Amino acid sequence: MDIGVWLVGARGSVATTVVTGAAALRAGLAAPVGCVTAGPDFAEAGLPPIDRLVFGGHDISSTPLPKKAEELTRGGVIPAPLAELVRHDLEAADAEIRPGIESTRSDENRTQAAIAHSLISDITDFRERRGLTRVIVVHVASTEPPVAPHPAHDDLGALTAALGEPGEVLPPSSLYAYAALSAGCPYIDFTPSTGAWLPALDELARDRGVPYAGRDAKTGETLLKTALAPMFATRALAVRSWSGTNLLGGGDGATLADPAAGQSKKISKDRALPAILGHPVEGQTHIDHVAHLGDWKTAWDHITFEGFLGVRMSMQFTWQGCDSALAAPLVLDLARLMALAHERGQAGAVSELGFFFKDPVASDEHRLQAQYDRLREWARS
Amino acid sequence: MDIGVWLVGARGSVATTVVTGAAALRAGLAAPVGCVTAGPDFAEAGLPPIDRLVFGGHDISSTPLPKKAEELTRGGVIPAPLAELVRHDLEAADAEIRPGIESTRSDENRTQAAIAHSLISDITDFRERRGLTRVIVVHVASTEPPVAPHPAHDDLGALTAALGEPGEVLPPSSLYAYAALSAGCPYIDFTPSTGAWLPALDELARDRGVPYAGRDAKTGETLLKTALAPMFATRALAVRSWSGTNLLGGGDGATLADPAAGQSKKISKDRALPAILGHPVEGQTHIDHVAHLGDWKTAWDHITFEGFLGVRMSMQFTWQGCDSALAAPLVLDLARLMALAHERGQAGAVSELGFFFKDPVASDEHRLQAQYDRLREWARS
Amino acid sequence: MDIGVWLVGARGSVATTVVTGAAALRAGLAAPVGCVTAGPDFAEAGLPPIDRLVFGGHDISSTPLPKKAEELTRGGVIPAPLAELVRHDLEAADAEIRPGIESTRSDENRTQAAIAHSLISDITDFRERRGLTRVIVVHVASTEPPVAPHPAHDDLGALTAALGEPGEVLPPSSLYAYAALSAGCPYIDFTPSTGAWLPALDELARDRGVPYAGRDAKTGETLLKTALAPMFATRALAVRSWSGTNLLGGGDGATLADPAAGQSKKISKDRALPAILGHPVEGQTHIDHVAHLGDWKTAWDHITFEGFLGVRMSMQFTWQGCDSALAAPLVLDLARLMALAHERGQAGAVSELGFFFKDPVASDEHRLQAQYDRLREWARS
Amino acid sequence: MDIGVWLVGARGSVATTVVTGAAALRAGLAAPVGCVTAGPDFAEAGLPPIDRLVFGGHDISSTPLPKKAEELTRGGVIPAPLAELVRHDLEAADAEIRPGIESTRSDENRTQAAIAHSLISDITDFRERRGLTRVIVVHVASTEPPVAPHPAHDDLGALTAALGEPGEVLPPSSLYAYAALSAGCPYIDFTPSTGAWLPALDELARDRGVPYAGRDAKTGETLLKTALAPMFATRALAVRSWSGTNLLGGGDGATLADPAAGQSKKISKDRALPAILGHPVEGQTHIDHVAHLGDWKTAWDHITFEGFLGVRMSMQFTWQGCDSALAAPLVLDLARLMALAHERGQAGAVSELGFFFKDPVASDEHRLQAQYDRLREWARS
Repeated sequence: MDIGVWLVGARGSVATTVVTGAAALRAGLAAPVGCVTAGPDFAEAGLPPIDRLVFGGHDISSTPLPKKAEELTRGGVIPAPLAELVRHDLEAADAEIRPGIESTRSDENRTQAAIAHSLISDITDFRERRGLTRVIVVHVASTEPPVAPHPAHDDLGALTAALGEPGEVLPPSSLYAYAALSAGCPYIDFTPSTGAWLPALDELARDRGVPYAGRDAKTGETLLKTALAPMFATRALAVRSWSGTNLLGGGDGATLADPAAGQSKKISKDRALPAILGHPVEGQTHIDHVAHLGDWKTAWDHITFEGFLGVRMSMQFTWQGCDSALAAPLVLDLARLMALAHERGQAGAVSELGFFFKDPVASDEHRLQAQYDRLREWARS
Repeated sequence: MDIGVWLVGARGSVATTVVTGAAALRAGLAAPVGCVTAGPDFAEAGLPPIDRLVFGGHDISSTPLPKKAEELTRGGVIPAPLAELVRHDLEAADAEIRPGIESTRSDENRTQAAIAHSLISDITDFRERRGLTRVIVVHVASTEPPVAPHPAHDDLGALTAALGEPGEVLPPSSLYAYAALSAGCPYIDFTPSTGAWLPALDELARDRGVPYAGRDAKTGETLLKTALAPMFATRALAVRSWSGTNLLGGGDGATLADPAAGQSKKISKDRALPAILGHPVEGQTHIDHVAHLGDWKTAWDHITFEGFLGVRMSMQFTWQGCDSALAAPLVLDLARLMALAHERGQAGAVSELGFFFKDPVASDEHRLQAQYDRLREWARS
Repeated sequence: MDIGVWLVGARGSVATTVVTGAAALRAGLAAPVGCVTAGPDFAEAGLPPIDRLVFGGHDISSTPLPKKAEELTRGGVIPAPLAELVRHDLEAADAEIRPGIESTRSDENRTQAAIAHSLISDITDFRERRGLTRVIVVHVASTEPPVAPHPAHDDLGALTAALGEPGEVLPPSSLYAYAALSAGCPYIDFTPSTGAWLPALDELARDRGVPYAGRDAKTGETLLKTALAPMFATRALAVRSWSGTNLLGGGDGATLADPAAGQSKKISKDRALPAILGHPVEGQTHIDHVAHLGDWKTAWDHITFEGFLGVRMSMQFTWQGCDSALAAPLVLDLARLMALAHERGQAGAVSELGFFFKDPVASDEHRLQAQYDRLREWARS
Repeated sequence: MDIGVWLVGARGSVATTVVTGAAALRAGLAAPVGCVTAGPDFAEAGLPPIDRLVFGGHDISSTPLPKKAEELTRGGVIPAPLAELVRHDLEAADAEIRPGIESTRSDENRTQAAIAHSLISDITDFRERRGLTRVIVVHVASTEPPVAPHPAHDDLGALTAALGEPGEVLPPSSLYAYAALSAGCPYIDFTPSTGAWLPALDELARDRGVPYAGRDAKTGETLLKTALAPMFATRALAVRSWSGTNLLGGGDGATLADPAAGQSKKISKDRALPAILGHPVEGQTHIDHVAHLGDWKTAWDHITFEGFLGVRMSMQFTWQGCDSALAAPLVLDLARLMALAHERGQAGAVSELGFFFKDPVASDEHRLQAQYDRLREWARS
């Protein structure tokens, strides 16, 4: 009756917070603050309880989870005695972590099919060894640059053939998605990386009867955009510019300071506004790495809008959050919800989970409340 | 086929912007920015067109509308040549303004029944002289302090008797509401004043088959609260404090700097948060008069919240708006919607208009998007 | 050669941070960040080194310093292992803490002269027992309300006589100041409480040849005001309004939420602006208690100003600081500087320390840079 | 006794505001708000009065000043009736505007020496025709990209030779500076363009006994940096990051959105912080064009700093100003001060005017108050 959660990037900040938090909840050491599915709207949905989640994953880092949890404690992400109190759970999860793929490009002696085979074995071994009803794979590793188009991306047959040849057809996130779906496991794109977001992988998901969801969890600026932009829209206030600056510390900030990876994030972040407002809006979105912020992030958004008779007005907001603490409970939510989707036999893109994502699969709905209403209805149905 | 809009406070900033704006829209000199009911969601609702609205009202001021519009032009509320271009319309509306009641207390030689009788005559004369299908009365005069309880407030019979005696039973806003409803006119509480918000007046509205709505239009801080608080709620983030400072220039700021009137506004402003979040939240709301802001207002809100594992985070926003430009299009919306409610035979409190108000009559729903959805459904039904 | 620092409020957050920090500096566990006198401008001034400071004090609380330091560690004020590493120093200082006066009003069986006598003994015992060259008394206890005027406040003879009678002539902070000065110890008003700020106590200080300084250390909003207002002044930009909201957690916030104590703080905070700008400025200053902020404080200030040809502009800032961490290094600075003043034989108000205070004694200079220049010159002289 | 002010970019927003404002001051229609030299500190300095300033200049635009002033009136930079009231002065100045050089590169049939000769004639004709004691040349045209190094930039002899050859040795701003200095006129770099900022032009200035000053007037974010950074420095608070986003409307924003020109501005903006703090500071500075802001600009800066015991704190500010209204009075100040420098026989870089500039010539002093003190002393001397 246990459900596996296989984290790609299992020794990163988000994953460590997920494992620590799930253990803390199980032990009654913390309340499920930030867990959407802990609310009364989801009480009857038949979701697997958080204390039945079992963790494993892939990572290229060899820093053990307990050590990573200590770092996060010093950084203020995990409250002081907690990592020590759940050390056993961290060690248990750490024992289920297998080496990730550093880069699909570097493994020159193996085809991507062979690499995928190895990833699949890691996941299915975990499922069998731990006697899990199902395993949900969640990609929480560093953001990749946008992928270059390749003809094999559009067709599953062509993809299968190409993976058997030398060379790199899929970026790492998509190879993980390929492995997960091939293993019959639901897959979640928690980052803006390509992941399952290719026609050939969508075909694979539908073929295997496996659901996938994504992408790029919204935990700050975009979350606010999708809460605020509908206000301007329903009030018929004409938004004329929306400018944003995101200051990110930590590893995420360093990754996104790379213009290529930052590009993936910006594409993902820029979807919501025109979709909600119905027209393009002037303004740039900056993503800066500010190491001194540590695990914290700060977003400042400045909005100008026109009111009655053309009067110009403005608003601005500053969001100061801890990225891992905002993300971790959503990983738990998504694992539970995708377990339900899998149990229900839903295959392919799960558009009903758009509430969680900046760039939701198979959905043009970006308005936060409307996404929530749809999620709630789906869970209840 | 024309509809009357009778503005209590007809020479104030909001009313002047309403009349100027309606004339500008009619003449094709402005787009209906900020008019909720100009959107496609309301195209089929059968609302009276804005260019069929005819304006009149009560005011204690004798400054003519064209002169007031010049002031607002200097203040940047009305764009430079517009007031001149619609001068004829301003003069026409000004000719329909009758002296308001300075204070119900000062008219010592007349009972409140007699005063009400005179107000009723002003409104019905307007309706007949201009051949109006119906007249919507909108209270946009200065905010009054909370009213002291009186036994006659709870029962229409007792109220009718009491009004015939010397003394003051109703505050001015409620006497206007009494007059409007008695004249068979829909009444809108656009401010936090008591207005129709008394059991005896609710009884009167239902007796006469007349709808009323209110109260206190949300155009800034509270609008944002009702857009943002649901985000925290659906994301299960635990809001721990919400502090706000409102800096208001102009006449509104001066009125609300008076602690008694400010109290009405604060009561009204403080309803939304606990209703949306389901628990009380620490934090004060300040309303300061800052004369130098002129017709503008600035609200700063600071929110602290707890995320996963108790991590403390915060957000803050600053809203910089022009009060009259935010309010005026909503007056037009409400007049149109209440004309529809009246035409449909709706009597008593119209709970479906909560989208517009800080303290909506007959409704506990404060979430902005949910209020909008309800409004849209009602208009379409 | 050691110097004593006698802290009134020795078990409060500021004092605990002072003692912990001084020990950390002595042990090489921390750098003197925030210590003004650690900079090169003061290297030649002959100040006593921080590692020769010995701590004691009065407090009405009985929570030992090591326990208080643990609380501050949980609150993020003191970094995680530090309190443990300097536990010995905390215990040593705790052993030098004597019971403070709860309220001068409650000690009904003793005159204030008798109470003062006991306070003096505590301080002189400390000085002799520890073989200290001198002892600097620093008031860091909770803010008191403004004191009611009393004829004995204006004359030392009258004061001496009045203290010998039953009743309350001096508020606690002033009784501590009286005791310190009587014991020949320099006294520092670190809070807005009355302290030495009475003509009779000024006379006492000059009589005894003892210096005093104050009052109300500037560590946030006022610090920024005195850095920013000179910019507007020298640029001839006409500041028209300056509004501020201070959100304070912790004990300080709770104290200042009391209108009487808050009044002392507001009086102190409101001195700088008109002094720097040369004219009164519209705008209010709010002090709110927000418990969820813990040891942190947030100040938001909004400034409107007029530029060339009357164009209206604005700026706003938000300051998010940890109160005790901002205050503690200044206590060390002031102790060192007052030791120097004492050594130099300076008696009465030391106007050259205005750099540290919201409401500097014997000085109308509030411009931060000018205050710094004056401080540096004085230290070098 | 009249003093000429020759504006390069004479039909731009800043120049138009300068001419309008000077006329308004002369006519008593406005107070000298924003004029530093109108204050009592400069009353005895012997500066030429503003009403003795006579305007002319170069521009590549042919839009007459009265028309440009109307645009600025619609944009809210110039109050409504003023442009009309001083129309005569605008026309008089417009009559003194000569065609500017579009690009030094495009004039292929003429050497730069020939172009310079023509510019010199324009300026000396103005001086003689109007009987001016002296003419101050102020560069307020669009920002240029950083200039590519050229050997002739380092030596006046080499420069003179090179200008006589075909090809482009100097960028436009420097050719204007060359012309001004050759004509014996003081020159002011009001923008970050190269202007007089070349060794060969410095030599020319000293040879001719003419002063020059610059560069890049500080009117927003950098002004604030130089007011705030000294606060952190004197308080020994360790600034760890300083990030800034500048949203600029209008022509200036469009120019600076070009990465090459923006680079000049960023170089200039980034000088102050490390100079004041004594160490480099993490953080980026963004300059975005937001057309909807019109003549306004908004800067948001976010600063993280470390306090006692390494506690991390932050502050942020938002500056919302009208660029031309902030710049124009400084042009008047600089014209007056440079007239004084010229009268006193000061030659070469005038380091005492650093108070006005982001990147002051011949000075490492960036602290605003220290710059002001130095300016005041110089003016009085």
